[in-house]
Amino acid sequence: MTSPAKGAISEKLAGQLEKGSWIRKLFDEGKRLIDIYGADEVYDFSLGNPVVEPPEAFLKALADTVNSGELGKHQYIPNQGLPSARQKVADYLNGRYGGSVKPEHIVMTVGAGGGLNVVLKSILNPGDEVILLTPYFVEYDYYADNHGGVAVHVPLADDFSVDTERVARAITERTRAIIINTPGNPTGTLLTQDNLNELGKVLAEGEKKHGGLIYMVYDDPYSQLVYDAVPPNPFAAYGRTILVSSFSKDLGIAGERLGYVAVDASADDAQLLAQAFVFSNRTLGFVNAPVMMQRVITRMDTLAVEQQEYRKRRDLMVGVLQEAGYEFTVPQGGFFIFPKAPIADDVEFCLKAVQEHRLLIVPGSGFGRGGHFRLSYSVPIKQIERSGKVFKALLDSYR
Amino acid sequence: MTSPAKGAISEKLAGQLEKGSWIRKLFDEGKRLIDIYGADEVYDFSLGNPVVEPPEAFLKALADTVNSGELGKHQYIPNQGLPSARQKVADYLNGRYGGSVKPEHIVMTVGAGGGLNVVLKSILNPGDEVILLTPYFVEYDYYADNHGGVAVHVPLADDFSVDTERVARAITERTRAIIINTPGNPTGTLLTQDNLNELGKVLAEGEKKHGGLIYMVYDDPYSQLVYDAVPPNPFAAYGRTILVSSFSKDLGIAGERLGYVAVDASADDAQLLAQAFVFSNRTLGFVNAPVMMQRVITRMDTLAVEQQEYRKRRDLMVGVLQEAGYEFTVPQGGFFIFPKAPIADDVEFCLKAVQEHRLLIVPGSGFGRGGHFRLSYSVPIKQIERSGKVFKALLDSYR
Repeated sequence: MTSPAKGAISEKLAGQLEKGSWIRKLFDEGKRLIDIYGADEVYDFSLGNPVVEPPEAFLKALADTVNSGELGKHQYIPNQGLPSARQKVADYLNGRYGGSVKPEHIVMTVGAGGGLNVVLKSILNPGDEVILLTPYFVEYDYYADNHGGVAVHVPLADDFSVDTERVARAITERTRAIIINTPGNPTGTLLTQDNLNELGKVLAEGEKKHGGLIYMVYDDPYSQLVYDAVPPNPFAAYGRTILVSSFSKDLGIAGERLGYVAVDASADDAQLLAQAFVFSNRTLGFVNAPVMMQRVITRMDTLAVEQQEYRKRRDLMVGVLQEAGYEFTVPQGGFFIFPKAPIADDVEFCLKAVQEHRLLIVPGSGFGRGGHFRLSYSVPIKQIERSGKVFKALLDSYR
Repeated sequence: MTSPAKGAISEKLAGQLEKGSWIRKLFDEGKRLIDIYGADEVYDFSLGNPVVEPPEAFLKALADTVNSGELGKHQYIPNQGLPSARQKVADYLNGRYGGSVKPEHIVMTVGAGGGLNVVLKSILNPGDEVILLTPYFVEYDYYADNHGGVAVHVPLADDFSVDTERVARAITERTRAIIINTPGNPTGTLLTQDNLNELGKVLAEGEKKHGGLIYMVYDDPYSQLVYDAVPPNPFAAYGRTILVSSFSKDLGIAGERLGYVAVDASADDAQLLAQAFVFSNRTLGFVNAPVMMQRVITRMDTLAVEQQEYRKRRDLMVGVLQEAGYEFTVPQGGFFIFPKAPIADDVEFCLKAVQEHRLLIVPGSGFGRGGHFRLSYSVPIKQIERSGKVFKALLDSYR
């Protein structure tokens, strides 16, 4: 009955589950260790879960929302999102990027993950290519594939800036989008405005050469977690920019799934794009982004937040790694660092880390660049402080 | 630059937007009337937005969740959902259907809409057929198409029961699933256990004949809105049942987007299916169902709720329509009625309703059965009470 040609689940998905199994194996090993030794005796730097509590302004707005006597506040709302929440996002984006984003060109989404799927479904024709810059957040592969897209991987330069010449060579008549994520996962490095402007030029030239439209899909959820630097302005770099973001990191509400997609009013086809995003948000089954969180951000004076908590962790973590002797680019944002592994086989390195040092870190191959590992410093400060000896012992064991 | 072959949005989506425009036109006309005459002078029966407030137990659990000092409560959680919330759902389902659903075979989803997409992505191979019984919730077409499926439409009998012989004839070697929604949208009629058992037999025979696996995807969000009847038990009717539901209707929290997918422990491949659903929930960008609502249902003693508010509306609405002389099947659940239109052209009928009587109802063609119209009685009771004269005047104008 369960012939291989018609198994219990789709064939493609069966293959994808199989492919992801080595990462699960690593995590299972970590869990096993935590069960044996307790969380305090395991150094878990593997998870990208924002650990800083939401700001007071959010918590107050949440309490006010719940305590308000307003009726019907949990009902369906327009698929696009509450107008008041979209206005708040527009104000925030325009304050940040000095643009002219209007509420009617914003769609509230189920996090940035939901937003990226909404965007890709809206713009991709079957076989369209989506350029992904490696190392990268590998979920992008699935997001592109979900909607008939084909991922094209282009390596970032050694300092994790965009190698625009390589991008130029990768553009074909099927190129439909490039996803940019800065500061991002897994490197935490910030692109400069010059680098982004240069990329914008390359995309515009690609459009001219091949006659198609190429979007810069700008995945921006870490841009309020930036330290000692100013994040670049995507709208200034390229006209056909679609910004996707969330409140997962800056407000610390990743589990609540609130994000948005925005196009500047000056962009070509802004209205048609927004209409398409609304349609995709509905038909992919998101329907509308969770309504209570939209009411909460509506009540907040501003969505601009100061983030000192992650900076503190960044500084501590950088100190620990430098002291131990790791080679890495100091991240200017987010909560990840992507150091070089002392051996080429990063999977072996990370296995050794967990087995011999109870240290959970993720192999760079999982992000499309071997010979590195990713660590998240979105962890308790004490964990960073007491991790110095294990990071050092691990590296020393290769000397 | 914007050649037709590469427009601003995907070609398929451009066509879909175009196709849906007549419904939008009708709604725009309704909005225009509301702007002119005020909501009290327009009879809007067009929307399926659950209007009854959430039960006290939910509101208390929500307040307790927000007021609890628990840290990290808004962070990411496992993609599958909180174990405590899944336990609550398992208890509810087993109390309801007497089955053996376990928390590990439940995945919390972004509403039932999200759940259906998760299921279809997990089971469909390209070109697999999904049987949809008409009249139906037309979003199913998009859900199937999102994941490479092909919708096959099979009419329900005149009394809106399943015509199992027709289903048997529609099953091919590509049939992968049938979606059942009872009581449902747009008819509100309830399938009998006998009818569902008969369908189960037909599906099992179809599997045997063609050698593939066929799932009954049971879309169950209205099953706590059932009046003077016992809803059928899908697990008893067919082994390969995947239940999808939400708290949108019974708890009145449609905008919060909380639902789930469940497979009985006795089903073949229950564990593999759950694993696939978790993967799809993640890679479609849902990531996890909104966490706060999962904490809220965890705090509730039971998810079983009594629904007298919609029954009251159902009785009133049925009275209004009978008094006016409409021909229809009395619904046993949900909040929709699907009467016959007095003329074959239901779009013309509904246009006349809005233009001459300020009455907003939806043409049956929008649900795959012309000559009918759908009305939602999820509206204020006063609106039902004062609508008698317009429903009567509308019908009388054809006599």
